[in-house]
Amino acid sequence: MYSISNLQQLITRAIAQQKYPVNPSELYEPISYLMNLGGKRLRPALLLMATDLFKGDVEKAIKPALAIEVFHNFTLMHDDIMDKAPLRRGNPTVHAKWNEAVAILSGDVMLVEAYKLIMQVKPAILPNILKIFNDTAVGVCEGQQIDMNFENHQEVKVDDYINMIRLKTAVLLGGALKIGALIGEAAENDAHLLYDFGEKLGIAFQLQDDILDVYGDPEKFGKQVGGDIISNKKTFLLIRALELAKGAQKEELQNWLSQTTFNTQEKVAAVTAIYNSLNIQEIAKKEMEGYAAKGLAALNKIAVDEERKTVLKEFADLLMLRDN
Amino acid sequence: MYSISNLQQLITRAIAQQKYPVNPSELYEPISYLMNLGGKRLRPALLLMATDLFKGDVEKAIKPALAIEVFHNFTLMHDDIMDKAPLRRGNPTVHAKWNEAVAILSGDVMLVEAYKLIMQVKPAILPNILKIFNDTAVGVCEGQQIDMNFENHQEVKVDDYINMIRLKTAVLLGGALKIGALIGEAAENDAHLLYDFGEKLGIAFQLQDDILDVYGDPEKFGKQVGGDIISNKKTFLLIRALELAKGAQKEELQNWLSQTTFNTQEKVAAVTAIYNSLNIQEIAKKEMEGYAAKGLAALNKIAVDEERKTVLKEFADLLMLRDN
Repeated sequence: MYSISNLQQLITRAIAQQKYPVNPSELYEPISYLMNLGGKRLRPALLLMATDLFKGDVEKAIKPALAIEVFHNFTLMHDDIMDKAPLRRGNPTVHAKWNEAVAILSGDVMLVEAYKLIMQVKPAILPNILKIFNDTAVGVCEGQQIDMNFENHQEVKVDDYINMIRLKTAVLLGGALKIGALIGEAAENDAHLLYDFGEKLGIAFQLQDDILDVYGDPEKFGKQVGGDIISNKKTFLLIRALELAKGAQKEELQNWLSQTTFNTQEKVAAVTAIYNSLNIQEIAKKEMEGYAAKGLAALNKIAVDEERKTVLKEFADLLMLRDN
Repeated sequence: MYSISNLQQLITRAIAQQKYPVNPSELYEPISYLMNLGGKRLRPALLLMATDLFKGDVEKAIKPALAIEVFHNFTLMHDDIMDKAPLRRGNPTVHAKWNEAVAILSGDVMLVEAYKLIMQVKPAILPNILKIFNDTAVGVCEGQQIDMNFENHQEVKVDDYINMIRLKTAVLLGGALKIGALIGEAAENDAHLLYDFGEKLGIAFQLQDDILDVYGDPEKFGKQVGGDIISNKKTFLLIRALELAKGAQKEELQNWLSQTTFNTQEKVAAVTAIYNSLNIQEIAKKEMEGYAAKGLAALNKIAVDEERKTVLKEFADLLMLRDN
């Protein structure tokens, strides 16, 4: 069996070998630029792990794995326009480096390139693979729209938040795993269980992200600690805190949310103090662990030797114990 | 055999029956909105004509035909953002009615919806159909990028212009026809000839558009006559005029191109007068007729009864003799 780092290397090599046409350069350079900004390649690695789990030919799963990474980067390119983000992994975003039109059109071509890659499977499973890929793509777009809608909502319920992160983040992990499983000739039921593992793990992953934004080690966390607090992002932590806070504390929290000018350090410290007194970190951790446990339960039901599951379990641990 | 208007009706009915999820409404309402602004449905009708040409089952080609129309409307939604166009068919564009983020994301989902529709063919031809669809989609994006690049080029050569309109407009007609042909179980060679017919006809169609922008009947032409002249759009007419004009006339033409404030009627009249004295309308018509003739020559070579080709020939005539 392949180790996680083996699989990440396979992906990195395949990405380096991807060649796009030279002209028009505004269309293709941004693709290579964004694809080569790095990243952990977790999604394509998951696809390959799934193929390997069922003793499938990992080499034959590399193009579809690349499809998942190209698709993921396509969503980043377009999301960055929508979010007016200046930076991505410490470098200028495509719309900042070129312009918005380039980022729109280059992203469109990336989506088509993702389809070119995902269709490189045996004809017998092609319709099924395409269906999973289409459903995944639609889910991710729905998640992004719901996330944007939340910015204008006074109140977001926890269930709606979980559904949003399920769509925006988790279905792509589930989809990658299911596609990998089918390439590995898994039975439909096992492929479905692996999807479930990925979806639940994805939700846990995003909850971990919410926690790290506030409680991460500033030395290790890649982004500004407290960034979500500064921007009033409706994370699991804020939603739960708004539910649990009462009286003067609730007023204080809402007061911070309504400020348009403030000292960012002061706001982060004050909101974190409210979270602390409401025990929000523990509550979020418990929620996260609940989803991780559901994911592992699905993995446990899959009909392959337990030892073959080690890599995926290790992966789940990595995701949950990460500090960046 | 089906008449053109029969086929257009089939498409119109199928579009009316297309249902999208209700939520998130910002994602799906713009799709229905844009798809129902009307249009002649020429591209999907072409796909059905191709299936019918080879005695294929037209009913089974309706979903792929819809894919072509959804794809075309996806490009309109994104192009309108890039072109900052306020109106589409007399109505607000999606980014004007909602906002840019909605137009980007809703367009992305449309592209996925197009893939959902195009894959509804027999599994045996699915890889081939997807390949044509991917190549077409990439070509259209390349054409749009090259078109945008032309805005900043001092000099555009006729060959580069023809290649741009081939990509931006013609490959989609060719692709629609080829897909329809393969659904109708045409031989590969015949399908290729039909692609060629569509591509050449598409170039002729765009040249006709260039001519109508200047010489169209204002009563019948849907857009502002002279719009291309006002915006210095590098059309076949302008490119040829810049090649042919000499001395004082060339200076006058370049002077109009460099003006930032001007009376639009005066500019249209002056540039049209230069075109007239250079015989540009005739030159453009000859070019257009040359491409139409090449397209018809490809159609003539296809190995089906001549009488079955009547509808496509009628369609070509319609495109060439149109005044809007």
